[in-house]
Amino acid sequence: MPIPGVKNLIAIGSGKGGVGKTTVSVNLAITLARFGYKVGLLDADVYGPNVPLMMGVNQTPGARGERIVPLTGYGVTLMSMGFLNPGDGALVWRGPRLHGVMQQFLFGVEWGELDYLLIDMPPGTGDVQLSLIQTAAITGAVVVTTPSDVSLEDARKAVDMFSQVRVPILGVIENMSFMQCPHCHERLDPFGHGGGHRTADAMGLHFMGELPLDAHVRVGGDTGKPVSVKGSAEFDTLARDLIACTDVERSKRKTTISVED
Amino acid sequence: MPIPGVKNLIAIGSGKGGVGKTTVSVNLAITLARFGYKVGLLDADVYGPNVPLMMGVNQTPGARGERIVPLTGYGVTLMSMGFLNPGDGALVWRGPRLHGVMQQFLFGVEWGELDYLLIDMPPGTGDVQLSLIQTAAITGAVVVTTPSDVSLEDARKAVDMFSQVRVPILGVIENMSFMQCPHCHERLDPFGHGGGHRTADAMGLHFMGELPLDAHVRVGGDTGKPVSVKGSAEFDTLARDLIACTDVERSKRKTTISVED
Repeated sequence: MPIPGVKNLIAIGSGKGGVGKTTVSVNLAITLARFGYKVGLLDADVYGPNVPLMMGVNQTPGARGERIVPLTGYGVTLMSMGFLNPGDGALVWRGPRLHGVMQQFLFGVEWGELDYLLIDMPPGTGDVQLSLIQTAAITGAVVVTTPSDVSLEDARKAVDMFSQVRVPILGVIENMSFMQCPHCHERLDPFGHGGGHRTADAMGLHFMGELPLDAHVRVGGDTGKPVSVKGSAEFDTLARDLIACTDVERSKRKTTISVED
Repeated sequence: MPIPGVKNLIAIGSGKGGVGKTTVSVNLAITLARFGYKVGLLDADVYGPNVPLMMGVNQTPGARGERIVPLTGYGVTLMSMGFLNPGDGALVWRGPRLHGVMQQFLFGVEWGELDYLLIDMPPGTGDVQLSLIQTAAITGAVVVTTPSDVSLEDARKAVDMFSQVRVPILGVIENMSFMQCPHCHERLDPFGHGGGHRTADAMGLHFMGELPLDAHVRVGGDTGKPVSVKGSAEFDTLARDLIACTDVERSKRKTTISVED
């Protein structure tokens, strides 16, 4: 089911947690907004919602009738379980209740007119993920991984999950791909390098690019001031690629429909 | 409910994924086995089971009657969803079905006599986690985090989850705590440093120690040859701390029972 007013619904998933999925989501959303698009970001990681911390937004959303009025940060319309359950309390909920929350986050929030609604998916391939991708008409998915084999193993499972429910994969991003020693400026790769690209190639998927393990990016997220607010060449490039991939996907669909007609 | 023959049941959790929970579980299990204990490792991360890859074990477990016969790697008795669902297929299961699998992994596997059964918990605080910690009589939990605020935010939620169901926290481990540049040998901390210790102190929890972000540890996991197989000073120290903490916890319980008597 499409969300009224939302042109492109992009799921950002990973299989494995801790690979930088939220960092990528937050910075892509801010970059798209900087480019002039109307952008929303739905933090669907109900058990570990890190978007409020990373965006530096910590308020309670208001309501208009039965609908939730989302918050805004750096020009991005925001909704997160972290707004409804702030603090350190764990949300110990089972599947059916989560399904209801996902429905409400997708269809009960006043998203307004959006060019892009990015969904920061929870890691894994469980209940919440299924509810989300089966309920909403997702334009395409981006899979984030690190170069480590362990992360790639789970990324392939995420690709398989999206394929099982016929969500097209727009591309794969390799995060923590390399880093530069701040002392001797040599290039380091503590998590390995290139596995994301190789895996994308092997699976016939588009490789969207590499992102460095950059302390500035991490500090930006930890302090609620993402690097892309002031502009980041890496995220600019990624965002442009996302725009193009989304457009191609929509164009493919139109072609398929006219052929079927 | 206790598992017959299992003396200590230790849950290793994290809140956030990708912080090295499985790396810690695998290396602690191997180290305990090297110390002469009888050790089992249950990979409960059903959606992203990385234990088979990290232990270099990829077989199908046999059955004895209706019971599963676990596999063995580096002296550790092993069970993982990865043995039952090998390859890149995503396991797209909902809560109730997972609950059944957890029951079977705990009580339907021939664990035999074990001093320690470590459970590599799935990240988060959802269905599987609840099923696990409510079903089995867990001696105590270890929470793994990185120093980044985002990881600490989720670690506090994991602590809260264990507390809600009255599982004692044995301690907190800070992984990816620092690294050494292989070129200039300067100390780097791409994820920050010390947040795990500070968080443990603030929550009145025992801090078990820091583990470096070490390419050898990552490569060991990626190639199925964990560093602790040949002995690792860091994991030796952690394992000794775990033994002591577990013993203290059991001793506390005995005291409580005799006081109540």
